[in-house]
Amino acid sequence: MRVPKHIGIIPDGNRRWALTNGLTKEKGYDRGLDPGLHVFKLCERYGIKELTFYGFTVDNTKRPKFQRLAFTRACIDAVEMLSRENAELLVMGNYESPMFPKELFPYIERKKFGSGGVKVNFLVNYDWEWDIESYLKMEEKNDLIGSIKSKDISRVDLIIRWGGRRRLSGFLPLQSVYSDFYIIDEFWPDFTEEQFNKALDWYQIQDITLGG
Amino acid sequence: MRVPKHIGIIPDGNRRWALTNGLTKEKGYDRGLDPGLHVFKLCERYGIKELTFYGFTVDNTKRPKFQRLAFTRACIDAVEMLSRENAELLVMGNYESPMFPKELFPYIERKKFGSGGVKVNFLVNYDWEWDIESYLKMEEKNDLIGSIKSKDISRVDLIIRWGGRRRLSGFLPLQSVYSDFYIIDEFWPDFTEEQFNKALDWYQIQDITLGG
Repeated sequence: MRVPKHIGIIPDGNRRWALTNGLTKEKGYDRGLDPGLHVFKLCERYGIKELTFYGFTVDNTKRPKFQRLAFTRACIDAVEMLSRENAELLVMGNYESPMFPKELFPYIERKKFGSGGVKVNFLVNYDWEWDIESYLKMEEKNDLIGSIKSKDISRVDLIIRWGGRRRLSGFLPLQSVYSDFYIIDEFWPDFTEEQFNKALDWYQIQDITLGG
Repeated sequence: MRVPKHIGIIPDGNRRWALTNGLTKEKGYDRGLDPGLHVFKLCERYGIKELTFYGFTVDNTKRPKFQRLAFTRACIDAVEMLSRENAELLVMGNYESPMFPKELFPYIERKKFGSGGVKVNFLVNYDWEWDIESYLKMEEKNDLIGSIKSKDISRVDLIIRWGGRRRLSGFLPLQSVYSDFYIIDEFWPDFTEEQFNKALDWYQIQDITLGG
C-alpha cells in the first residue's frame, strides 16, 4: 500500500452534529476527541509519519464565547490526550494572542512523548496570514518555505475533510498547494474507520505529479 | 441566483482525452478552446465578474517538447480568441523566462477589449513560488496580498476543476484559501454547459464563511 507521508485532517461538522442530535452547538466539540485518537492510532498502524489537525483559527475565535471556550477546551484535551501516546507533538498558532490557551505553551516547540513516533501537529489559534507573513523578514529568497512560521510542518500529501464542505478554509496554504483533497460528507463526531480507509484507498489510485 | 464573483477554471484532462480518443497526448490541447469560449459566454450571461483560467505552469514546461509547444499554442490562441470579445484580459506568469510566449507580451498588464466586461485572467508560465516571493521585497506588513505579483487577481470564490483530480496543483494559493472546489470527472474537452450550471447550483447552497 502506498500511504501518504503526511495527512491533514479538517475535522468539521461538530456544530452541525450537535444540532442534528438535539444539542446546542458548543456541545459538539468534545465529541471530536475520540475520532482524533482513532485517526492517530490508524496512522501508527499504517506507518503514516505526520498528521496535522486543524484545531481552530483566529477567525473562529470571533464566534460566540460559549463556542470559543468549548472548542478551545477540546483542543487542549486533544493535545493532552495525545501526549500520553508515543508521538512528537507540535502546536502551531499565534501564541502571542490571549486566545491561545496557556495550557498549550509547553507544545509550541516540537516535543517527543513516550518513545516518539508519528509527528502530530495541531493548529491552534492559527491564521494563514500570520503564518506566512514572516517571509517579509527574509533577506534571501532561496528558501521561501523555510521562512514561514510553520516551517516544521512538511508538505501535506492528503487532506481529509469531514462535514461535506469542499474548501481549505485557510489550512496551511503553502503546504497544501499540491495536496489531494478527500471530502467525507459525515460530520467529524460520526467518524468511522471505514471513512478513513476509503480515503487512503482513493489516495492510492491518485497520480501524484507535484505540479509536473 | 447568488453567483460567485470570481470563478477559477482548472481545465484538466486534455491529454487523457486525447489518449481515450486514439490521439497522441499533445492533440488534446486545442480541444480546450471551444470550452473556454463557452465558459466565458456563460460568465457574461450570468453576470460573473471575473474568471481565471489555469493555462500552464513552469512545472508543466518540463514535459516533452511536443506537448509544451501544443499547450503553449493553445494558450496563445485562447487569449487571442478572447481578445475578440468584450473582456478585460490579463496574462499572469513569469514573462522573463523563454517559456513565456512572446505573442502574449501585450497582455501582461490588464487591457480592455471591445467594450470591456468580464475580467479574464490567464495563468501562463505561472509558478506559485514566483508569484508570492515578492513578499520579500515588502517593507510594510500591512498589505500582504497586495504585495504578490498576482495582486490584480482577486480572491477566488469557486474553483471548478475538470478531469477528476481533487487538488489545486499550485493554482493561486493565496487567492484560494477560502475558495469552494467543485470537481467534474469528465475531461475538459468534453465540457458541457450542464456541468458548469451544476457547479453554480452547488455553489448556491454553500455556506460562505471566509474562515469565520
